[in-house]
Amino acid sequence: MIDGRRFEDIAVGQVFEHGEIAVTEENVVAFARQFDPQVFHLDAEAAKDTFFAGLAASGWHTAALTMRLIVDSGLRLAGGIIGAGGSLTWPRPTRPGDVLSIRIEVLELRPSRSKPERGTLKARVTTRNQHGDELQIMTCDLLVWRR
Amino acid sequence: MIDGRRFEDIAVGQVFEHGEIAVTEENVVAFARQFDPQVFHLDAEAAKDTFFAGLAASGWHTAALTMRLIVDSGLRLAGGIIGAGGSLTWPRPTRPGDVLSIRIEVLELRPSRSKPERGTLKARVTTRNQHGDELQIMTCDLLVWRR
Repeated sequence: MIDGRRFEDIAVGQVFEHGEIAVTEENVVAFARQFDPQVFHLDAEAAKDTFFAGLAASGWHTAALTMRLIVDSGLRLAGGIIGAGGSLTWPRPTRPGDVLSIRIEVLELRPSRSKPERGTLKARVTTRNQHGDELQIMTCDLLVWRR
Repeated sequence: MIDGRRFEDIAVGQVFEHGEIAVTEENVVAFARQFDPQVFHLDAEAAKDTFFAGLAASGWHTAALTMRLIVDSGLRLAGGIIGAGGSLTWPRPTRPGDVLSIRIEVLELRPSRSKPERGTLKARVTTRNQHGDELQIMTCDLLVWRR
């Protein structure tokens, strides 16, 4: 199994911070072309006349970059970072020029009732830019293995 | 404003279906290299000894492909598909060879209290493969403009 922290190595309230990833216009447009081809994610000039009033990254791009920061962070769960799901909001869009970092906060640790070797780690992952603006707030359930 | 459906053009219970996108091993690995570089998303051979027992797409790849299907679907909201957030679960992983399609179901339509020109469309978007297996179930809030 991939080496790393187990259920017993983590405590509620623990915080892991990680950064940084710089977001460029090129990245924003490349992601959008593949996964979210809408004008406000594709064309800086045309985006001015939209809800976003300028080029904005797809929310799913912010989510994907957040995952990259989680994987590279000090959380390092045994067996890997495996999510069962979660919920997320995007209080404001990621913009070209933003530099992203995350803060992972352990909210809850629950042993599994049916599978004694497993547990669930509920975390809040907040993604911010270099100005401290919150771009994404996610709550997610991760699989953690017991010793 | 981008042409499309407005609040008054949509009814609770309405369904939009769209497909298909084929997922290849190359796509799975390329996404993972950028956004979720973990062995079960990167290396089919090494993935056999992991939780996923074989190469699996990142959940965020499934989410991004689902967004692509939503954008290309018949939903076509005026002003674009703009989500404020949502929640999602991945009942099983997307695998290379899977062919994805979605079903969007309108759960709720709420006029905004503070902004008379806006409303919220709550939708359930279910992503399935060619066998009908549910890969992602998402509930999301989308911005809809009133006439």
